[in-house]
Amino acid sequence: MLIRMGKRHNPGEREILSIIRDRAGGHPNKAIRIGIGDDCAVLAPCRGEEVVITTDFSIEDRHFRSWYPPEAVGHKCLARGLSDIAAMGARPIAAFVSLAVPRALTQPQHRVPHRRRAAARWETWLDRFYTGLLSLAEREGVTLAGGDLSESPSLAVADIAVVGAAPKGRALLRSTGRAGDVLYVTGALGGAAAELANLEADAPLMMTMGPHFYPQPRLAVGQALMRRRLATACIDISDGLSTDLLHLCEESDVSAEIEAASIPVDASATLDQALHGGDDYELLFSASPRTRVPRQLGGVAVHRIGRLLERKRGGSRITIVTKAGGRMKRSPLVPQGWQHF
Amino acid sequence: MLIRMGKRHNPGEREILSIIRDRAGGHPNKAIRIGIGDDCAVLAPCRGEEVVITTDFSIEDRHFRSWYPPEAVGHKCLARGLSDIAAMGARPIAAFVSLAVPRALTQPQHRVPHRRRAAARWETWLDRFYTGLLSLAEREGVTLAGGDLSESPSLAVADIAVVGAAPKGRALLRSTGRAGDVLYVTGALGGAAAELANLEADAPLMMTMGPHFYPQPRLAVGQALMRRRLATACIDISDGLSTDLLHLCEESDVSAEIEAASIPVDASATLDQALHGGDDYELLFSASPRTRVPRQLGGVAVHRIGRLLERKRGGSRITIVTKAGGRMKRSPLVPQGWQHF
Repeated sequence: MLIRMGKRHNPGEREILSIIRDRAGGHPNKAIRIGIGDDCAVLAPCRGEEVVITTDFSIEDRHFRSWYPPEAVGHKCLARGLSDIAAMGARPIAAFVSLAVPRALTQPQHRVPHRRRAAARWETWLDRFYTGLLSLAEREGVTLAGGDLSESPSLAVADIAVVGAAPKGRALLRSTGRAGDVLYVTGALGGAAAELANLEADAPLMMTMGPHFYPQPRLAVGQALMRRRLATACIDISDGLSTDLLHLCEESDVSAEIEAASIPVDASATLDQALHGGDDYELLFSASPRTRVPRQLGGVAVHRIGRLLERKRGGSRITIVTKAGGRMKRSPLVPQGWQHF
Repeated sequence: MLIRMGKRHNPGEREILSIIRDRAGGHPNKAIRIGIGDDCAVLAPCRGEEVVITTDFSIEDRHFRSWYPPEAVGHKCLARGLSDIAAMGARPIAAFVSLAVPRALTQPQHRVPHRRRAAARWETWLDRFYTGLLSLAEREGVTLAGGDLSESPSLAVADIAVVGAAPKGRALLRSTGRAGDVLYVTGALGGAAAELANLEADAPLMMTMGPHFYPQPRLAVGQALMRRRLATACIDISDGLSTDLLHLCEESDVSAEIEAASIPVDASATLDQALHGGDDYELLFSASPRTRVPRQLGGVAVHRIGRLLERKRGGSRITIVTKAGGRMKRSPLVPQGWQHF
């Protein structure tokens, strides 16, 4: 594990590691007995809690581009992991970042005022990556407790591992949905896909960067679902609603029917982007028809979009209902979300 | 988190994921409530245990070459993480592998007999990577409980996260060595460096691949040190004895003196390779001078190599004692182990 120093103590590397350690150490967390600095981190979950763990890659030219603001890359790297923790209804405890970057990204790029020393200094890509990551970590009460740091021969690659905890037997799963349950989704969908499409179309850069760059994991929503026992199953839809709904259906061994008119489409997006776009860090969950699900959870809107059905043999797992000329039309919904390969 | 499927269900990807899941699921472990297949894995450590976590990168052209046997890359990827767990005296529970590979490595390369279907089939780099990794995992009682899988634009990159457990407050740290303690190291050092030097010198390939390809993490040794309360501090020396001894000294705020003649140098290696070579997955530990440390632990030889001293202000942290013409000579030992940058 990081955060060690290498051969002949290149002061640049020593400085990088000591800065990361200093910056990460600012937020004491009693669940973390040993953070950065040993072979492993040591965590002490509370009695009666289980430990949940997820890992996710962020790879240059695959998940982000070299010109993206490093703060956004760091933010999204952690957000990917936190969104999985949110989907379990767990509280995040610690994050571990394995980062490999070409040497150039450890060199100063932009002159910016240093927050602590009050003197101007040069910031590196690495500094700015950690600024984005640690700012989200602080907001969500997560401690950077370790990781690995390495020179990469070419592209920048970051792998995030996030560890959280949930009361024993209470973590929300994607495999526990039942036929007859009602399907809900949080927030508005398609915004990240619309933003990416604009970027790819060379549209003028927006002044503020939106959900493609700075997605917000729905930790409060997930925890409310778990605590209030509202959901029968839950998944995050970072791969896109259609693809992640398929995952929920497959793991729960059910089919699903959703209504096109009920999908909360972001103002900037099309229905297609909302269905398949991906990068929406919202939660999709099922609830018993007898459960009264609030219209808002943790400040985020909750929309009823369909229901789970008995598994159909053959045919599509997911049906989408549209209205055309006052008549209902049922069509199979082919998942077209994010492709890992 | 893996192990999801992507857009339009490329059968190749679907098959990859289902094979990994099948292969990983073979070894039930009661500490793992949910393994591959959900947003997060769910682990249930025993009562009174703390959770230890480490992550380590394996990057093509940095930690391995494209021509290395994929089994060795998979083995070493997991061994890196297990060695950190060993250094804490912990028992490993679960491993998470984030893997990004160019598409070509998911395509069949070699025709080999399939172990289960009895028919010949083509194996991919990915299959063989998991063969190496899962074979070590099975031997050490670790379950592959998740990870991420992604296409890489160029190089293969694997990040391993290993989660283990140790009784509360008992994990071995590198920061708890005390002046006056005796220093010990396990096994023989320099073998991996000698093997790598031979490879780089274009020496004929050995028939069997040695410690550079298949390092053995010292889990039984670490657990014995913890259980029998033998060590005051412990670290693994995968970065090289000189570099990792410096880490132990810095974290424990002490200096150290080692005797050149006491270093257990592998038969194939030089003293320099043993001191600085790295890739030796042995343990370096300190023990009170009053502790009787056995000559063997977990079947591995244990060698007394020096001692910890009060921290010297200025000068070198580590002194090496050599004998020349019957006289003792003390010189500073400059760490020259693995360089992360």
